Amino acid sequence: MRPLAVSMGDPAGVGLEIIARIAARGSHPDFFLIGDADALMRAAARAKIALPAIVRIARAEDAANGALCVLDEKLAALETPGAPNGANASAVERAIVRGVEACLSGAASGLVTLPIAKATLYAAGFRFPGHTEFIGELTKHIAWPHARGPVMLLANAALKVALATIHTPLAEVSRRLTAQSIVDTGLVVAEALTRDFGVEKPRIALCGLNPHAGENGALGREEIEIINPAAAQLRALGVNATDAAPADTMFHAEARAGYDAAIAMYHDQALIPSKTLDFWGGVNVTLGLPIIRTSPDHGTALEIAGRGIARDDSVRAALDMAHDMAKRRLSA
Amino acid sequence: MRPLAVSMGDPAGVGLEIIARIAARGSHPDFFLIGDADALMRAAARAKIALPAIVRIARAEDAANGALCVLDEKLAALETPGAPNGANASAVERAIVRGVEACLSGAASGLVTLPIAKATLYAAGFRFPGHTEFIGELTKHIAWPHARGPVMLLANAALKVALATIHTPLAEVSRRLTAQSIVDTGLVVAEALTRDFGVEKPRIALCGLNPHAGENGALGREEIEIINPAAAQLRALGVNATDAAPADTMFHAEARAGYDAAIAMYHDQALIPSKTLDFWGGVNVTLGLPIIRTSPDHGTALEIAGRGIARDDSVRAALDMAHDMAKRRLSA
Repeated sequence: MRPLAVSMGDPAGVGLEIIARIAARGSHPDFFLIGDADALMRAAARAKIALPAIVRIARAEDAANGALCVLDEKLAALETPGAPNGANASAVERAIVRGVEACLSGAASGLVTLPIAKATLYAAGFRFPGHTEFIGELTKHIAWPHARGPVMLLANAALKVALATIHTPLAEVSRRLTAQSIVDTGLVVAEALTRDFGVEKPRIALCGLNPHAGENGALGREEIEIINPAAAQLRALGVNATDAAPADTMFHAEARAGYDAAIAMYHDQALIPSKTLDFWGGVNVTLGLPIIRTSPDHGTALEIAGRGIARDDSVRAALDMAHDMAKRRLSA
Repeated sequence: MRPLAVSMGDPAGVGLEIIARIAARGSHPDFFLIGDADALMRAAARAKIALPAIVRIARAEDAANGALCVLDEKLAALETPGAPNGANASAVERAIVRGVEACLSGAASGLVTLPIAKATLYAAGFRFPGHTEFIGELTKHIAWPHARGPVMLLANAALKVALATIHTPLAEVSRRLTAQSIVDTGLVVAEALTRDFGVEKPRIALCGLNPHAGENGALGREEIEIINPAAAQLRALGVNATDAAPADTMFHAEARAGYDAAIAMYHDQALIPSKTLDFWGGVNVTLGLPIIRTSPDHGTALEIAGRGIARDDSVRAALDMAHDMAKRRLSA
């Protein structure tokens, strides 16, 4: 199996020191880094991590398993931990693009993205809310004979929850939500549960949008007009999906036992339970694309960058999950 | 100390069987029920609970500690477990009103409300989104020399979280949120933490509204325009309040150790973490009113009503919390 590609993310964040720690400790799925090899060495030095020898490669195809290969994507400016620099925005973005290309060419079996500093990228002209939407755009010309994403799924040992809207300001969520978008999300999630996670008969639970799922319309009508019709459509298409339930009653252990994945209507409705249940080990997975992509569910953590104290649980889990998904697709 | 008053809630729900179970088991704070004594006996019989002898009283002042006193508020129609009947709406509402009156007259030291069937009450003409707003209205003519609520707080052993908006459709949350409303909520919460929960120097954490707390304005501007200005005002008023933080990172154990209460901007932002952390034992507390009011954080649970399987953790915790608050006020 080909190694995973790992895009460096913002060099001012914790990504490089985390991947350095994982590389140093060993016993991880094979991967190669797309980023600045010197920045990786500096991050390791700052965090007092004894990095294995780096093998610099010129093409993703040259990445070998069992070594710390780096496909060099040079930074324009020396990084300062904690202070992202717009001068490095294009290298950060290029690392993602090259990671996607490596997956599409078959040189990598999946892409794990390290955290980016979004405000810095936005200021530099990046026009996607996040990785998920960007990677969706980069792959949209590639044929994919299944339900199409990108759909964002948060996954940890306790919960899988997908998002019907992602980086949408809360005031606009209701306007952006359509029955079609929920149906599309549900189809992608149902297929991915089977294809990528081995769930034979996926059960999907839809979150309500409003307090008490709208209390029969008294506290909002999106459940009646949008979410429940989408659930009915999904069921007509053979997907085992429930009507909208009050979201606050969906995430304790007993409720979670009733479904394989929940679909949240907006960002925090998914991220709050996911991170409350498992703050350190969650993985962000992009579903419904021709490539496999995972990432940690945390950001750049600028306030602790460079101190060598960032936890590696989530990146480690993201590597493991991408590896497992790739293996499952290979053996399918 | 005077007993607590308990309003019956909807007789088609689980409230009466839960209070019957608590009364039968004993070792609870003293309380008297405001509701239909015969309905209480029927609920106990259905759930096979051996109820202690009921003492019917005509006035709240007659409630005695150490006995199961019931201030009779007759139902208009025989209850059907699981099927609320609009004919009983006025008795359900009257039980709340009389509970508030008992607190105001000093006949009760606090009010614990059992769950109501909101859709049924709405259909019968009840024009408040829930107990919190109704009790706020019933007490608004009473002098209160402190910051004024009603503010809804969810409290369990892991988390206290108050709500800046309560039963607001999600699409309207942004419009309803004002710096003033957040300041008012923060003042009520800070005072209540000291007065009712014994926290000497309360630390309050404000939730962001948007994904990533707006990502510096790129994903919504309410943090910049409304929430952070409110936080600054609170600090100027001597309240230790933080700026808006991404809500998804605020509810794991390490984050919770940093504050005494969080303030959520909307219903599910508070209820999701609260019920995910402790589904069974949470309490809904109304702050900033001249009376003490708590309730379980669950609803009527119509689907299991009458079967004797409803858990009593939350009502029990609501009784204990109201009792502790009343004791603290007495000894202040």
